[in-house]
Amino acid sequence: MPFTGEPREPSPSARSAVERLITPRSVVVVGGSTRPEALGNRVLRGLIDGGFDGEIHVLGRRAATIHGLPCVTSFDDLPDGIDLALLTMPSAQLGDVVDSCVAHHVGAAVCFASGFAELGEEGSRHQEELGRRARTGGLRLLGPNCFGLLNTVGRLSALLAPMPPTPVPGPGHGPGVAIIAQSGGIGTLVAGGLGGRGVPVSHLIATGNEADLGLADLLEYLADDEHTAAFAVYAEQIREPGRFLRAVRIAQDRRKAVVLLHPGRSDRARVAVQSHTGALAGDHSLMATVARRAGAVVVDTTEELVDLAQLLLRFPAPPAKGAGVITQSGAICAIVTDAAQTLGLDLPELTPESGDQVRNPLDLGTGSISDPMIIGKAAERILTDPAIGSLLVSNPDAQDPLDSVWLESIVPLLAGSAKPIVYVSQNEAEPPPGFHRLLLDHKVVFHRSPERALRALARATEAGARRAIGRREPGALTPAPSLATGVQPEWIGKQLLRQIGIPVPEGSLARTPDEAVEIAERIGYPVVAKIQSAALSHKTDVGGVVLSIADADEVRAAWARLHSGIARVRPGLAVDGVLIERMSAPGLELVIGAKRDPRWGPVVMVGAGGVLVEVLEDIRLLPADLPESALAEEMLRLKAARILRGYRGGAPADIAAAAHVAALVGDLVLARPEITEIDINPLIVFPEGHGVIALDALVTTADLG
Amino acid sequence: MPFTGEPREPSPSARSAVERLITPRSVVVVGGSTRPEALGNRVLRGLIDGGFDGEIHVLGRRAATIHGLPCVTSFDDLPDGIDLALLTMPSAQLGDVVDSCVAHHVGAAVCFASGFAELGEEGSRHQEELGRRARTGGLRLLGPNCFGLLNTVGRLSALLAPMPPTPVPGPGHGPGVAIIAQSGGIGTLVAGGLGGRGVPVSHLIATGNEADLGLADLLEYLADDEHTAAFAVYAEQIREPGRFLRAVRIAQDRRKAVVLLHPGRSDRARVAVQSHTGALAGDHSLMATVARRAGAVVVDTTEELVDLAQLLLRFPAPPAKGAGVITQSGAICAIVTDAAQTLGLDLPELTPESGDQVRNPLDLGTGSISDPMIIGKAAERILTDPAIGSLLVSNPDAQDPLDSVWLESIVPLLAGSAKPIVYVSQNEAEPPPGFHRLLLDHKVVFHRSPERALRALARATEAGARRAIGRREPGALTPAPSLATGVQPEWIGKQLLRQIGIPVPEGSLARTPDEAVEIAERIGYPVVAKIQSAALSHKTDVGGVVLSIADADEVRAAWARLHSGIARVRPGLAVDGVLIERMSAPGLELVIGAKRDPRWGPVVMVGAGGVLVEVLEDIRLLPADLPESALAEEMLRLKAARILRGYRGGAPADIAAAAHVAALVGDLVLARPEITEIDINPLIVFPEGHGVIALDALVTTADLG
Repeated sequence: MPFTGEPREPSPSARSAVERLITPRSVVVVGGSTRPEALGNRVLRGLIDGGFDGEIHVLGRRAATIHGLPCVTSFDDLPDGIDLALLTMPSAQLGDVVDSCVAHHVGAAVCFASGFAELGEEGSRHQEELGRRARTGGLRLLGPNCFGLLNTVGRLSALLAPMPPTPVPGPGHGPGVAIIAQSGGIGTLVAGGLGGRGVPVSHLIATGNEADLGLADLLEYLADDEHTAAFAVYAEQIREPGRFLRAVRIAQDRRKAVVLLHPGRSDRARVAVQSHTGALAGDHSLMATVARRAGAVVVDTTEELVDLAQLLLRFPAPPAKGAGVITQSGAICAIVTDAAQTLGLDLPELTPESGDQVRNPLDLGTGSISDPMIIGKAAERILTDPAIGSLLVSNPDAQDPLDSVWLESIVPLLAGSAKPIVYVSQNEAEPPPGFHRLLLDHKVVFHRSPERALRALARATEAGARRAIGRREPGALTPAPSLATGVQPEWIGKQLLRQIGIPVPEGSLARTPDEAVEIAERIGYPVVAKIQSAALSHKTDVGGVVLSIADADEVRAAWARLHSGIARVRPGLAVDGVLIERMSAPGLELVIGAKRDPRWGPVVMVGAGGVLVEVLEDIRLLPADLPESALAEEMLRLKAARILRGYRGGAPADIAAAAHVAALVGDLVLARPEITEIDINPLIVFPEGHGVIALDALVTTADLG
Repeated sequence: MPFTGEPREPSPSARSAVERLITPRSVVVVGGSTRPEALGNRVLRGLIDGGFDGEIHVLGRRAATIHGLPCVTSFDDLPDGIDLALLTMPSAQLGDVVDSCVAHHVGAAVCFASGFAELGEEGSRHQEELGRRARTGGLRLLGPNCFGLLNTVGRLSALLAPMPPTPVPGPGHGPGVAIIAQSGGIGTLVAGGLGGRGVPVSHLIATGNEADLGLADLLEYLADDEHTAAFAVYAEQIREPGRFLRAVRIAQDRRKAVVLLHPGRSDRARVAVQSHTGALAGDHSLMATVARRAGAVVVDTTEELVDLAQLLLRFPAPPAKGAGVITQSGAICAIVTDAAQTLGLDLPELTPESGDQVRNPLDLGTGSISDPMIIGKAAERILTDPAIGSLLVSNPDAQDPLDSVWLESIVPLLAGSAKPIVYVSQNEAEPPPGFHRLLLDHKVVFHRSPERALRALARATEAGARRAIGRREPGALTPAPSLATGVQPEWIGKQLLRQIGIPVPEGSLARTPDEAVEIAERIGYPVVAKIQSAALSHKTDVGGVVLSIADADEVRAAWARLHSGIARVRPGLAVDGVLIERMSAPGLELVIGAKRDPRWGPVVMVGAGGVLVEVLEDIRLLPADLPESALAEEMLRLKAARILRGYRGGAPADIAAAAHVAALVGDLVLARPEITEIDINPLIVFPEGHGVIALDALVTTADLG
């Protein structure tokens, strides 16, 4: 091939299909129509209006000119190897069209039509078939049941309906937020929220039902996009958790925040999700625990999704310390203090400096009217204080010229600050042009209410504090016996715990009454007798436990009572024997355990024991690799923390020992993939320095075969 | 006096001082100055710019012309009986000026200066003296330390700084919101929030430190104002609770909502409040309980203060039933469902209708693009459903022409609906002019996020549901003995409970060991012995209780043990004797009580017993006059409700009997003003149909003398 002096473009095959989807050089609208209300007509209109400057082709049933472009009637009339096909026909015709795309080496296709998994089982089969046909042929699909995609820098607007205008990333605006959403409605809403505040948006990609491409593919690809510096992600079901988490970690390495909104905290929302995209949401809090550990900022509302994307685009490093607040109103100080407590955001005391009267929150009062210089000075004093992670400046009214003075005095700090600065003026009218200009020129993170601004800072600070926590080096576990599949009887579970270093009561399994007496005599009275069978996970419900056994006669009596009882309640049950254990001294009760989600992997669980765990669900799910100090801190965030700290003059509980058990449970579940659940309930926690003991243990395994 | 053919104006004395403050016919600015930065100069400027059309006088140190008006140097040069004086001098000069105002029959004065109670004790004395001098002379004061007042209809702008523009109530706009605030900063913020949404504001009155006029005076006066149809009130300390509550009730009778924001939920906010206006906030939740019962809508954030004022101005009757939701996105349905659960807002199932597929929340999907008529039909179907109290319509983007179609299809419902309708488009850009016009013309309650809109509906619905609850007719209490002042010993407290019909264990006070045995033999074993002394409120902490006494010998032994124990721990303590009682069967533990705030009056308290009340503060404060059915419902809102309903297969508890006890406690505290506290802890609650029994009782009285 002759050298032409120009750099050669890579051949189509050298560009990945995802690249061809997002930055196509050629697009074909399939289903072109002269009827203005037809989807093919509208999608083509949007593509042209969006200013796409690559090749545009149109394929339809009838030859025609549509929006000035020729519409052909056969794939054979199109060039081979078009990058992107926009498929605007109903679901029933999509299969054949996908085959044609494959045959003509199209790179990727967007399927707008609904009528798939969201309709139930038959729709799901149809959808799987569509995905299979595409993948087999090397074609990547976006959708079906999707709103399309927008690449603002590439001027590609391939959407079901026009989008709200947003600033485009580039030299003037800097990089933007990429919106990746399983719902076009939420994508539009986020784009409208960001765009309305002058925040640039690089992409909006609606993945819909994800017959092929999913959130993970797009996040992974855009993590390296130069025009994207933060992500707003909306998910109803994350189909490939492992790849998604890896993409989140890559984005985080690039200092690009991934803010994630995922409904399903309530049972009823999970049902709503299923009828929407056919996705079946799992355990929301487990997903959130694992996603947060990977670095995602998981939020609960669309407000937070927009607010955090904006904040972390502007200030990529989330603060690990609390917020400083400056107002010109003592009332706002009081309101912000109440709100911070509700939100769990610290408003730290400032580090003492000589001759310094600045407090946090700070009410500058009317002093700022006569001397506007004090605003900037106070802001700098607070912002540079080592105790402070972020700054909120609140003034009542953007319409007031004084507000511009306040904002101007903050501006010099904005450029150089790694700590987030947020400005609040609660007036919902459009700010005056000069004020608006200041906001845009300096990319001010601007809010209309102190509470909403504070909430954004609270969420960011949680994420920053979480990021500051390292990973625990897993301990070297003594090799433990392999376990049968299913629920383990208590004595096996306790054997396993003992082997990895978790204290359990002295004792062992007796197969005969004589053996039971022998064990009791060896360990010393009083003892406890517990019938053992893998099929009995709740022994107390079937009368399978006898406490406070004082001598050999009582051991024999207990043996008889346990066996006759079980024969009555569960005739024919296979029994392993009776576990004879030293009776433990009383203490505080915790629950410590672990569970493994087949998709998201393991988490550790700590909770208050007894009535608190069962009635109040006083439980926290935690990453399995948290350091022991972080595990201890999390225990002190339980509702029952007041009891752990020493209640009514009682001694504080041995939280360090309990945290060590949680760490060992974490080590175990990380090392043994066949273990699906561990439940130590109760773990008795003695006063500080006196350790813990696991009174009951339930271990469940799955067949990995 | 000759008849002139014109209606005679009432003489100044016929108009109340508050009327002369709010709608003055003549104003004098005291402290006039030619220096533009002087407060007197700025206040005069604001008054003139605001378009005040009554007489304006200026009094200053030097004769001059200021903003075109002559400035005189002596009160003697002013006409007698000016309605309103705006006092712009520093605090030290205010006393003398107040005296001059009195001497010249000024009706009311605004004191802007700070430097009073917010500075501490000396400032408080100065402030009291100022208030006393004014009141004695018949002059009413607003302030000091206040932002001033604005009467938009009367074109009176007497403010420390200019206000954001707001629509003025009148034929075009209808009535408006009156903002009454102890902080000018919050007043401005609320005015900016409302004005920015096109909501008319009738007044902004900042009461500051309230040396004289307070929230109650202004609320009472404006409850009858024709241009005011809702109130946004910000309080840091309500100085006259009784009058304030009466004013709230009057406003409610006029169908004018009073929305109240009062910081102080957190201890730290209470400290912030004190350094702000010198006000000392009391028990926030007690205040909120009583204020809500009077009809106030108590909110937690400035967002809610603005949102609820807007909503209840537009729809004065708060809904008692849950919300309907219409969107074009299944994702929004899921998000709204999660948010509703968090907010405690019901999204009711619709009442079944034949051939009707409408659900709640409803996703209209893309169907509304092809057939916009379905939006209005669906909205009407949901809104008229008897299960529904309000309607939220959410569309992603006000910039989208389709959003106007949605809004237009709701408009016909807006005029006639008593049920609140809220419209949401989350795009923070200024809406296009046509959309904006629709919003204003139809006074649409418009929000930028579904969650915020839902929160406003949730708070309104709570208020509506509360309003639907009637008052309990107090029972006729058997006349009970008069009580000594202070903490009553348990046996006296139980005597009182027994007399009003609350079950207590059988038994009585023994003064000698023989008497103790006699009582025990009469009531039957096992019994409990409890040492009795007014000084011992926590008997268990000093070993003052012996349980499970089985015979006469054990009674004597218990007597000896109790007396020797108490002699060791509290030597010289005066003891009444020993209470011998039948030992109760076990059951669920509740705490029921009452407390009386010296300012706000009595409330009833219900809580979970044992660890739940003390560690988790699982307590609800309730109005003392709630019907028994409402008391029972409130008990089922405790965190411990799951236990009450029957936990782990247990029988449900006798909640009706517990609610009856709460009602009797309410009757008692309503009938006996000397009782400041009642604490039944625990009240044992047996299974349904088996009643309750009060195991311990603490009654405290105050000297009303």
